Amino acid sequence: MTRIVRTRAELRTALGPAARPIGLVPTMGWLHDGHRALMARARSENATTVVTIFVNPRQFGDPADLARYPRNEARDLEICEAEGVDLVFAPSVDEVYPPGFDTTVTVGAIGRPLEGAARPGHFDGVATVVSILFGLVRAEHAYFGQKDAQQVAVIRRVAIDLAIPTEVIACPTIREPDGLAMSSRNVHLSPPERAAAPVLWRALVAAREAWARGERSGDALRVTMRVALAGEPLATAEYVSCADAATLAELEHVEGSALLSLAVRFGTTRLIDNEPLG
Amino acid sequence: MTRIVRTRAELRTALGPAARPIGLVPTMGWLHDGHRALMARARSENATTVVTIFVNPRQFGDPADLARYPRNEARDLEICEAEGVDLVFAPSVDEVYPPGFDTTVTVGAIGRPLEGAARPGHFDGVATVVSILFGLVRAEHAYFGQKDAQQVAVIRRVAIDLAIPTEVIACPTIREPDGLAMSSRNVHLSPPERAAAPVLWRALVAAREAWARGERSGDALRVTMRVALAGEPLATAEYVSCADAATLAELEHVEGSALLSLAVRFGTTRLIDNEPLG
Repeated sequence: MTRIVRTRAELRTALGPAARPIGLVPTMGWLHDGHRALMARARSENATTVVTIFVNPRQFGDPADLARYPRNEARDLEICEAEGVDLVFAPSVDEVYPPGFDTTVTVGAIGRPLEGAARPGHFDGVATVVSILFGLVRAEHAYFGQKDAQQVAVIRRVAIDLAIPTEVIACPTIREPDGLAMSSRNVHLSPPERAAAPVLWRALVAAREAWARGERSGDALRVTMRVALAGEPLATAEYVSCADAATLAELEHVEGSALLSLAVRFGTTRLIDNEPLG
Repeated sequence: MTRIVRTRAELRTALGPAARPIGLVPTMGWLHDGHRALMARARSENATTVVTIFVNPRQFGDPADLARYPRNEARDLEICEAEGVDLVFAPSVDEVYPPGFDTTVTVGAIGRPLEGAARPGHFDGVATVVSILFGLVRAEHAYFGQKDAQQVAVIRRVAIDLAIPTEVIACPTIREPDGLAMSSRNVHLSPPERAAAPVLWRALVAAREAWARGERSGDALRVTMRVALAGEPLATAEYVSCADAATLAELEHVEGSALLSLAVRFGTTRLIDNEPLG
């Protein structure tokens, strides 16, 4: 039976007697199979599984994007129940950011390129809310989707740097049968956009195949992705990247491992995806 | 018997079996009677007392100020021993900020005036290192001197905002018999400067007495402090403040409580002090 709490105080009370270790799955709701995989993993590795559902205004630069972020708490709770989640923390904005709140956690270099460049302030919002949720839940483990690879890197950096005793665990991206990465934003796609959206994955696969054939030029791999995206008229590429997997700095030449990533717009909907190399 | 540890790992091991609650006294060393009072308070309220000794480079804007900050670990350890401290954490800079460290905790409005304006970046350094130390020690209570009133306000804000489960406790300023607030920086004063330094306290007392006689004008109270400081040729006033005790915004008119504070230079040595009203 999944229990739901809405305040910091209720959460503290509920967690007091909770069996350890605790596994935390932070989400913004509108749960999909990607979240379910995180919950299943958390449940398999912990005595207590906690899911947070909080659409964090501080990580949205664009108020319109925040306003239209999809929400359906009743459905989310059914999914948590089905996945055997013990506790859901679904706070209001004022509960996460109480009156007088005025602290920001900022991550440096790793948060600057890619999503950080495209969405100014986004990772400050992520780093801050995750610090708060980690502080509140004090889980041994926290689970995030590798689909948001840079987000995972930012959160891992914060947890290490601020000596937060929660281990950050990245889980593989879950995809639709046609390759589209699961995302709450997919719901915004019109049917033609939805049909076009697997081009992200096709672009990544094209670059991965070029790499597998021996291509090591960063520019060549980026061009491969751009060409694939250009073949889809509904897709507008925002960025394509072939970067150092640790620093996310763009690579001239791929030596060891690397991260391919991209951001693409379909009308007003922005999707991201990535694929590690090596 | 005081035990000393120098790495995050040693600290974790030492704290594992420590009796709760834990009381933490973060210091930059060169311990004086102000620190001793914090340790005594921590010891009286906790089963385990932990002192950290770390001169935090990130809270010094001026490298010369950092270089000449006084240090004497052997003497500090004797004082910890005498005060019945259980554990001293005296890490290197690389242990607090490991390779790749790249996270900053920033506090907004409360950190901007006074010391924040005089020492750009200072409170980011304070908020960041305290977040780390709180994360590492996970104490129930942490003790700070009211002499650094704005620092206490900044740290309290961070702990509440980031849901750090450590209660921040401010302890009264400890003074020399002539009124000079205890500070590690006092050691830098030449004999004539040392003789002049109680002017900070005299200025605060003069303003407090004016307030006690009914003076409620912020400007008049600030002028009272400036006049007192001007009477001491070796003292150069940096700022005088009569501010809202909660927000530290300068007051035109004192209604309820307020905080008098000032920063004064004697040659290259900068001293601060403060006195609450109401």
